[in-house]
Amino acid sequence: MSAIDRLQQVTDADMALVNETILSRMQSPVALIPELAGHLISSGGKRLRPMLTLASAKLIGYDGIRHIGLATAVEFIHTATLLHDDVVDESTLRRGKKTANLIWGNQPTVLVGDFLFSRAFELMVKSDSLRVLKILSSASSVITEGEVLQLTTANDLSTTEEKYLEVITAKTAVLFAAACEVAGVVADRSENVISALEAYGRNLGIAFQLIDDAMDYSSKQATMGKNTGDDFREGKITLPVILAYRRGTDEERDFWKRTMQAVRQTDDDLPTALATLQKYGTLSATVDRARHYGEMAKDALAIFDDNSAKTAMVDIVDFCIDRAY
Amino acid sequence: MSAIDRLQQVTDADMALVNETILSRMQSPVALIPELAGHLISSGGKRLRPMLTLASAKLIGYDGIRHIGLATAVEFIHTATLLHDDVVDESTLRRGKKTANLIWGNQPTVLVGDFLFSRAFELMVKSDSLRVLKILSSASSVITEGEVLQLTTANDLSTTEEKYLEVITAKTAVLFAAACEVAGVVADRSENVISALEAYGRNLGIAFQLIDDAMDYSSKQATMGKNTGDDFREGKITLPVILAYRRGTDEERDFWKRTMQAVRQTDDDLPTALATLQKYGTLSATVDRARHYGEMAKDALAIFDDNSAKTAMVDIVDFCIDRAY
Repeated sequence: MSAIDRLQQVTDADMALVNETILSRMQSPVALIPELAGHLISSGGKRLRPMLTLASAKLIGYDGIRHIGLATAVEFIHTATLLHDDVVDESTLRRGKKTANLIWGNQPTVLVGDFLFSRAFELMVKSDSLRVLKILSSASSVITEGEVLQLTTANDLSTTEEKYLEVITAKTAVLFAAACEVAGVVADRSENVISALEAYGRNLGIAFQLIDDAMDYSSKQATMGKNTGDDFREGKITLPVILAYRRGTDEERDFWKRTMQAVRQTDDDLPTALATLQKYGTLSATVDRARHYGEMAKDALAIFDDNSAKTAMVDIVDFCIDRAY
Repeated sequence: MSAIDRLQQVTDADMALVNETILSRMQSPVALIPELAGHLISSGGKRLRPMLTLASAKLIGYDGIRHIGLATAVEFIHTATLLHDDVVDESTLRRGKKTANLIWGNQPTVLVGDFLFSRAFELMVKSDSLRVLKILSSASSVITEGEVLQLTTANDLSTTEEKYLEVITAKTAVLFAAACEVAGVVADRSENVISALEAYGRNLGIAFQLIDDAMDYSSKQATMGKNTGDDFREGKITLPVILAYRRGTDEERDFWKRTMQAVRQTDDDLPTALATLQKYGTLSATVDRARHYGEMAKDALAIFDDNSAKTAMVDIVDFCIDRAY
């Protein structure tokens, strides 16, 4: 059984409740809303983020039900972000299906994203915890800040690894962190426990995004319903390219400037880019970086007693990293 | 002095604090965010919605400071909605200035809208009132539902006046209502007071939108930095047209079908549309409807003792309606 199956098994009963809540809270008398939202929500995403909330609750032995609504809120925030991202990036394919913006146009896609954001906040309010609200509303601000930062630095080849980490922490890791942290808060556990959950989620999120960015240049990508080299074609500068630019010759730097800054590309350019990334080993360097953050995520869990949730949460770290192979 | 000046005078000291909060909470290390947000926020909007929160607080003698953050949150929700609306409608002009989407493109405009939504929620959380959070997060859901409903019914000439009222209540009046209601909640007043404030805001909001929709066909529109007949050109069906379609001949109905449903228009069509609206008096009928809701708004305030805030809130109702002349 793979690590994702084991994590699913551990969170199985609760996930059924989350799925029910997702379905009931995305309803609206305005038929287009559940239709459009359901297209993405039912498209076979792994629900990794809500699963982290549920596994965290299990890890610490929480026996209430407030984590169900929060896991749903986390998934809604994530879904809203994907809808808006696809509009912003003019994407046509997500999880192997046509994107909502391609089918219904930008107008309802932006609005249904807003609707899911609002629904997420309604669910958070129901948790009756102002601290949870603070964590998730702040996460939501940071995510959008990260997306704008990515937009404004996306074509800058001289960007630093630190800046890149700042972007992926904001746009990905902060929601992973919040997903785990809120379980500790509603369970009313010690600050020690809450910050361990936060650190686990944050480091896992960084590792996850590093692997995503490496995989964008891998042929395995195609099995995920995405195209190899999407980031390259969009001129979205991620760590594999940042490292290759830094390590490269003047001639190679001119290649990156033309293809990624000016985004003037020919059909031969993607193979050349892949060969250059290989030459400097920057894809495996990116995976190594991911492994580093993955180790920190696992170590954050060291304070907890062993149980099935802990095993699954440790294993999912390696699973996220081994996706790259 | 006009009614809007008097309302401004009554809320003057608090509005200075709201303006400070707006400026400080739209800041971000990501420079594009305050730049883009500031373009719209500083573009000479009247800040009517936050003013209603402040006036309501004054009306009921609230002497705390929690209404300042809430008034800011209300303005941020409104601004976020406008940014997304302009993307959705591909607008080029707002308040006589180029729209953000025209200057910076759709990508950052969608994201900065999301950022302001998130910031609004952060401000609401600071109010430390779960009831306030419930009111404003639910308002936010209803607004987006209303926008999607408008999108899906926009080209339906046989839509009813009831359906139209449902749309404008959702997309406009609910935020007016929430803006007033939250002042009663943070001031911890009786249910009677809270529901009077809600009713005032809701009815004023309906009147306000009715007048907006009538004015879209008026030459006074041009002085507001908008173009006469925008709704007509976009095929956006509002009450003046709903009534004209119902009251018209078969030939006139064919005209409305071609211009508003199929949105096939020539240069002569807007003058013909205006003449037909005049013929059936549907613009003045729309203003009459607005007056009806305006009277209900004023009557909702009858339970309050007279003070300068009450006078200004009563007068602003007539001011909103008299804009049409």
